[in-house]
Amino acid sequence: MSEVKATNITWHEGHVSRDEREKLLGQKGCLIWFTGLSGSGKSTIAFTVEHELVREGRLAYVLDGDNIRHGLNKNLGFSAEDRAENIRRIGEVGKLFVDLGAITMTAFISPYLADRDAARALLDDGQFIEVFVDVPLESCEERDPKGLYKKARAGEIKGFTGIDDPYEAPKNPELVIKNGECTPQQAAAQVIDYLKSRGLVRS
Amino acid sequence: MSEVKATNITWHEGHVSRDEREKLLGQKGCLIWFTGLSGSGKSTIAFTVEHELVREGRLAYVLDGDNIRHGLNKNLGFSAEDRAENIRRIGEVGKLFVDLGAITMTAFISPYLADRDAARALLDDGQFIEVFVDVPLESCEERDPKGLYKKARAGEIKGFTGIDDPYEAPKNPELVIKNGECTPQQAAAQVIDYLKSRGLVRS
Repeated sequence: MSEVKATNITWHEGHVSRDEREKLLGQKGCLIWFTGLSGSGKSTIAFTVEHELVREGRLAYVLDGDNIRHGLNKNLGFSAEDRAENIRRIGEVGKLFVDLGAITMTAFISPYLADRDAARALLDDGQFIEVFVDVPLESCEERDPKGLYKKARAGEIKGFTGIDDPYEAPKNPELVIKNGECTPQQAAAQVIDYLKSRGLVRS
Repeated sequence: MSEVKATNITWHEGHVSRDEREKLLGQKGCLIWFTGLSGSGKSTIAFTVEHELVREGRLAYVLDGDNIRHGLNKNLGFSAEDRAENIRRIGEVGKLFVDLGAITMTAFISPYLADRDAARALLDDGQFIEVFVDVPLESCEERDPKGLYKKARAGEIKGFTGIDDPYEAPKNPELVIKNGECTPQQAAAQVIDYLKSRGLVRS
């Protein structure tokens, strides 16, 4: 599905630059890409970061399964091809949000290196921040907040990451969060400190 | 392609409401959907509105062929199915932008009533503003800024709106702009006046 068909169209910047919107917002658009096993706490951390940033007057937004799988990607299933297309579309929407100037977060397992690298390649240097939420499979399975591991072990869900489908850990993520060893607030603080250290939001 | 496959997922609001982001931005998110023939001036008007709003300190963004067809929808062609999917995805992305709180504009021919109505149905009452850029075919063809009508008449482009594919004019658009009879600045002022009259941006 990612074959290029629309080739007779040229790109232009539009009349307002990202720079002007970023000045207006007092921040720099970026795409914080959380990746990790189901149950590792990606969404919880992302929403905690969003909450804290908005409290500080920054514009932040989380793309996750709830607002993406119900809408833009509701016509995609869980085949290998559809999973790749799922992540591709999320990367492209993330790019648009970054162009708007938003601190954008994605919270998807996104288990494959190649798919995440393709998303990274859409953004400029420094705009893509890969955050590996590193929690051992055993801990995720023990938590099992949605009962999905149980179903996967029972064979009711096929191709479940960590059980019968691989998770490819990031090789050089911008951040690693050992979420088994800290609270969501501590994890969120780690992300926000990173954003401030890079000048993406004001200290 | 718009069959619903991902049904085992539930929607939740996230931790920050649209309302909080709108308060932060001092505006209300909305989707201004420009529709009209090729060459009617949709993009020019949209970018003029964007420019003026950003000058007033508002966050506005235009989704158009350039940033969508090169990215999110680059794997779609021009078959009937792909055209519908093109507009469907644009509507869904527009909805996400509205949820972020942005004054969002789309500038696509979007010739079919059903596709535009499907986009309208994604948004809440008052969030979807259909703007019919009403310019006679003869004027658009005379302008022909990209030389597309010439190619369509020569049979080099098939299924071109207004030539060998229908344009279904909106029945009850929020705004009609007679763009043959005004400047882009006047057209943009019409749109911004509407936004202010509805309290979507401050007067």
